[in-house]
Amino acid sequence: MRKSVWIVLFLIPLAVSISSAKEHPCLFISKQGAQEIRLNLNRLPLLKQSFMRVKTKIDNALHQPIEVPPPGEAGSYSHERHKENYREMRAAGLLYQITGQEKYARFVRSMLLKYAEMYPQLGPSPYAHNQAPGKIFHQMLNETVWLVNTAQAYDCIYDWLKPQDRRLFEKNIFRPMVRWFTERNAKEFNRIHNHGTWSVAAVGMLGLVIGDDDLVQMALYGTRKDGNGGFLKQLDELFSPDGYYMEGPYYIRYALRPFFLFAEALQRNKPQLHIYAYRDSILKKAYYAAIETTFPDGVFPPINDASRTMNVQAVGVVIANDMVYYRYGHPQDLLGVAKLQKRVILNDCGLALARAYGNGNKVHIPQWKSIEFRDGSDGKRGGLGILRTGSAAQQTMLLMKYGVHGKGHGHFDQLHFIFYNQGRSVIPDYGFARWINVEPKFGGRYLPENKTYAKQTVAHNTVVVDETSQNKALQKEADKVSGQRHFFDASDPNVQVMSARADHCYPGVRMQRTMFLINDPSLPYPFVVDLYRLVSSRKHTYDYVLHYLGQFVHVNWPYAAHDSLQSPLGRQYGYQHLWNEAEGSDNRPLRFTWLDGHRYYSFLTAAQNGATVFFTRIGAHDPHFNLRSEPALIFRVHKKDCLFASLIEPHGYFNEAEESSEDPYPSFRSVKVIGHNDRGSVIEIENKTGKHWLLMVSNQKADGHKKHELQFGGRKFSWTGNYKVITFNK
Amino acid sequence: MRKSVWIVLFLIPLAVSISSAKEHPCLFISKQGAQEIRLNLNRLPLLKQSFMRVKTKIDNALHQPIEVPPPGEAGSYSHERHKENYREMRAAGLLYQITGQEKYARFVRSMLLKYAEMYPQLGPSPYAHNQAPGKIFHQMLNETVWLVNTAQAYDCIYDWLKPQDRRLFEKNIFRPMVRWFTERNAKEFNRIHNHGTWSVAAVGMLGLVIGDDDLVQMALYGTRKDGNGGFLKQLDELFSPDGYYMEGPYYIRYALRPFFLFAEALQRNKPQLHIYAYRDSILKKAYYAAIETTFPDGVFPPINDASRTMNVQAVGVVIANDMVYYRYGHPQDLLGVAKLQKRVILNDCGLALARAYGNGNKVHIPQWKSIEFRDGSDGKRGGLGILRTGSAAQQTMLLMKYGVHGKGHGHFDQLHFIFYNQGRSVIPDYGFARWINVEPKFGGRYLPENKTYAKQTVAHNTVVVDETSQNKALQKEADKVSGQRHFFDASDPNVQVMSARADHCYPGVRMQRTMFLINDPSLPYPFVVDLYRLVSSRKHTYDYVLHYLGQFVHVNWPYAAHDSLQSPLGRQYGYQHLWNEAEGSDNRPLRFTWLDGHRYYSFLTAAQNGATVFFTRIGAHDPHFNLRSEPALIFRVHKKDCLFASLIEPHGYFNEAEESSEDPYPSFRSVKVIGHNDRGSVIEIENKTGKHWLLMVSNQKADGHKKHELQFGGRKFSWTGNYKVITFNK
Repeated sequence: MRKSVWIVLFLIPLAVSISSAKEHPCLFISKQGAQEIRLNLNRLPLLKQSFMRVKTKIDNALHQPIEVPPPGEAGSYSHERHKENYREMRAAGLLYQITGQEKYARFVRSMLLKYAEMYPQLGPSPYAHNQAPGKIFHQMLNETVWLVNTAQAYDCIYDWLKPQDRRLFEKNIFRPMVRWFTERNAKEFNRIHNHGTWSVAAVGMLGLVIGDDDLVQMALYGTRKDGNGGFLKQLDELFSPDGYYMEGPYYIRYALRPFFLFAEALQRNKPQLHIYAYRDSILKKAYYAAIETTFPDGVFPPINDASRTMNVQAVGVVIANDMVYYRYGHPQDLLGVAKLQKRVILNDCGLALARAYGNGNKVHIPQWKSIEFRDGSDGKRGGLGILRTGSAAQQTMLLMKYGVHGKGHGHFDQLHFIFYNQGRSVIPDYGFARWINVEPKFGGRYLPENKTYAKQTVAHNTVVVDETSQNKALQKEADKVSGQRHFFDASDPNVQVMSARADHCYPGVRMQRTMFLINDPSLPYPFVVDLYRLVSSRKHTYDYVLHYLGQFVHVNWPYAAHDSLQSPLGRQYGYQHLWNEAEGSDNRPLRFTWLDGHRYYSFLTAAQNGATVFFTRIGAHDPHFNLRSEPALIFRVHKKDCLFASLIEPHGYFNEAEESSEDPYPSFRSVKVIGHNDRGSVIEIENKTGKHWLLMVSNQKADGHKKHELQFGGRKFSWTGNYKVITFNK
Repeated sequence: MRKSVWIVLFLIPLAVSISSAKEHPCLFISKQGAQEIRLNLNRLPLLKQSFMRVKTKIDNALHQPIEVPPPGEAGSYSHERHKENYREMRAAGLLYQITGQEKYARFVRSMLLKYAEMYPQLGPSPYAHNQAPGKIFHQMLNETVWLVNTAQAYDCIYDWLKPQDRRLFEKNIFRPMVRWFTERNAKEFNRIHNHGTWSVAAVGMLGLVIGDDDLVQMALYGTRKDGNGGFLKQLDELFSPDGYYMEGPYYIRYALRPFFLFAEALQRNKPQLHIYAYRDSILKKAYYAAIETTFPDGVFPPINDASRTMNVQAVGVVIANDMVYYRYGHPQDLLGVAKLQKRVILNDCGLALARAYGNGNKVHIPQWKSIEFRDGSDGKRGGLGILRTGSAAQQTMLLMKYGVHGKGHGHFDQLHFIFYNQGRSVIPDYGFARWINVEPKFGGRYLPENKTYAKQTVAHNTVVVDETSQNKALQKEADKVSGQRHFFDASDPNVQVMSARADHCYPGVRMQRTMFLINDPSLPYPFVVDLYRLVSSRKHTYDYVLHYLGQFVHVNWPYAAHDSLQSPLGRQYGYQHLWNEAEGSDNRPLRFTWLDGHRYYSFLTAAQNGATVFFTRIGAHDPHFNLRSEPALIFRVHKKDCLFASLIEPHGYFNEAEESSEDPYPSFRSVKVIGHNDRGSVIEIENKTGKHWLLMVSNQKADGHKKHELQFGGRKFSWTGNYKVITFNK
């Protein structure tokens, strides 16, 4: 069994043998690696380009005065300056090794001298808000990032420095900083969380440079060296067996840096640890699980706290890409990722990739396939499903979240989905409420509205029960539970399906969502069929929420617009931020069409007795205009059991500049629920040419071989396996 | 004098000599021209590309059944089908001439046979709304476009057709259609307006094809042939002496087609008319005046009723570009326009351009300079000023409107401005309220909100007096008056300035706006200084309106957000569509910063006693969601005389994906009014480095040599000419 292998690895006490006379640099690059880069620079375009980018920046920095300002606010000039400083030191250190030019080493030394002067004067930052404080920065997190970078710079000039310089830097900066991390802030250091990863990487990498194995042991096993904290426990617990990171892609993008920089440093200094093989090559899986969630343009889907724009060009992704390429047998698809990244790192890993990449003409951007990731360290806490169809930029993607909550950065959004088409998120996720690094916006930190809106269930494309967020928006409660995988089948490229459950978000309410992504030769674009089923022994208010972007075009039901006086839709759980722009009721099937970019989209949903629909727009109770003004539709029913059966269809074409418009009406005419119970759901959809689709889904335990027989309204339905789709013409 | 020349031309009766045995085609292409195109196709990439585009489309159409459906709604399938039909007929006619393949001629004939069957059955369209009705289309306008195209198709297959076909088509379609235009709808035909231009082009071109000079005479001089209508009067009255078209760029883009297609047909058939030389080459000026208003990406600024996206790739612009190139001595900058257009027309004009264009490697996209256009047929009715700085896509543009109202498509927006920077309209114009050709949106027509919002003064970046639109939003009143040019000086690339007046928009209120576009070596981007002065003998409410896009970042004054209950800001003149999101008051200088794309923008305005500021958002009283949700700021004062002295500064950098933010605060610290009276205005601005700019503007009659001496608060100011800018450090 896989699990036992890594447990055994973990229990073997690791041999310690750091020679104090070891060769430097030893963390990221070796003397020999630096020489090979120098020799190959002019032969390898991607390497040259990456090198010149760094060199131009640092040569420019060399002509500026060195600034080490007193600490300031998050996002302030001082904050940004210190970030820039560690980037410049790290890069200058590398340039010293690669070029041999002492001006780069002198630059690092001069800057460290200024830190050696200031650091002993500093106390805890007064700018921390509910965060472990740093001294240079408002939070310790930034300070550990500073040390991860500076340790590499120090490593690069270690041999060049005079012993008294080294003594000064270690006494005035590094030793007290490590004590700050491991003693005063031991809890943060031992946290199984990306903050913890940065901490252990910083301390461990410094330990490797200065030859203090005690620091390395703390980094690997926690401050008490008992394995209850530290790097290995993070590798065990922060990833599912498939490599999926519990906080989601945005945060793994950030955490990839300490994970890989420290892993690479360990590999170079403690090869006997076999860190890259650890837990069945979890680092490789972690990297693939991150990049395989991306949209076709390389942007990460904004799961949990995340921006809508973070992409594979992020530093950590470049580092991980090259290291995985180098350490795991040169997988070809990573050359394609490098094509999106347009650069490599300046060490043996980047060199190897640049060699295989050549001029890039033969390298293709990778096209990820449909995939399901299990979540939870044991793989038993739900997952994340992604269905994909089409190729290149025209790929359509449907993503559903049903894994763990994700701790402090988690959103209360079980069974939430994102629909990507036409090169954009058509049914989007809001992302975080944060103007990152924008100092006038609350210091660039998470805004209060992140908690009051962005994390709430109503900010997502899922169902809100009784106008209350899942698990009452209590993180601790949400962390205790998770979604559950039901079935996932992408074997037929024309009918792909995923189904999941979330039975522990609302007491007494069981929820199951099944989403199909279907290609049909009679239609120009793939369409989505969504079966969201809720079951309870008593009546609830069920709000099916659909966020969209673009322009409202048409609906087929009557409504009253609140267009001369506007109030928020509710008082809490995010509803207080939604203006109620209009509302209407209808017992018939509902159809809503909007325009986004060059395409129309229609949402059709089966008739529900007494359904009310609200048109909302974000903006209420947002006095500082921190939120973006975006619309949504909310379909509300009061029921015990309910099946929201809906369809999303892209159609037609609009080009304002050309003044052309085609097919502004959907081709689908109706969505009808034939019946649903705890055994199965059956719905029927019909398009205007008379073509019908009958979709049957098992609501029982997943079983690909089980025979199902159901009867609704006198009609009999039978199929084998988890689902069945039949088409016919009437 | 120029004027007398064209009057004389106009008075000479034009010799008429259309031979009934003339060679066809004669309108757009000649037999010889077609042959030359055939011979050069493979040698000239731009020609080949343009030809293949047409050929692919028509070859595809040849395999579809021909459809001539019963008339329908604007934007309906039928409407779009008939539009596609005339495009296909015209293109097929050309392909027949170029390739000699009869299948193309047969296609045109088959389609005409269907029209010959249907047309006699039709009465006036029941779908017209306050429009001269067509029969095939809801409005006559579309029907004249149909005939302009179909006349060319008919011309191309004229010789190939049997005489009985020609008799049938003329009897069943063309003759009754011409009567519909010139008898039943004579008023529309004689209108001095783009609808009139399409009408006369249609009838005139048909006259030239079928050899009926009576039709040509009506086209040239109006139905009564007295010169009170017709093409020449349109050339006289619709353009200013600088070629500026009174409806603005969006509509000239549309009207260029009939203007140039008919001019070219006249040149080929009545060269003695010297139509291209008419009115001092007004057609050339008209074309240049259109393209010289464009943003650097070739998009037309949305002056008056206009979309925000119309650009130089529009069919009419391609036609005019090639004809102006061919008929006016091959101006080189038009090759650059062709580079944006990526195609040429398939006749001698396009051939000549494609020859000079070659593979396009040496052709540069033109960079238009700062320019002022006089407006009104006599050039004495104000104008349009455009200041430009920077190059290529990084060009910054500042546009101010102070010409004629522009009749039915005019907006009540004297002294309105647009600021373009970073490749986008940062201070935008709303454009029209219309989802063009989107059938479910009111048939794709102008929406009611075009009148109630988009045309109103408050929808623009200018000052609204007493919450009432200029000229009370009465078109007839607005057409009687115009803005007045004051001065325009772009001679110093670092300090460019334009100044204009509008004294007839509000009874008893005189308005003058002076706008500077300034480059300073200490700043990374050009900035705008705006002096908007209003003078009256009694107190008014002055609302200075600023529309922006993007995200609110910061303001320096206290305000109360109406974020739990929201009402419209007013009841009429567009205010009823603006939600009042928040309001605040302050007597100090005000500063507002927002984020748009990758750049910050700050608006600073001098202190005003009792100033109130409203944050608004479009959306109130818009039950069908016809308007876009966009924000604005309104600065309100109650005064007799008032000088709004303001500054717009682009600064810093933001990149969410990179998580970097620089300089989110403006470099300017203050804007101060030193004094203003009817002789002049003096203001002072200061940036945080202590650099000062003193700006002095003459409010008297423009005179570049006049000496000015003013005294405000004990300080003396003197300068020569219309304005003076001095910088100094304190």
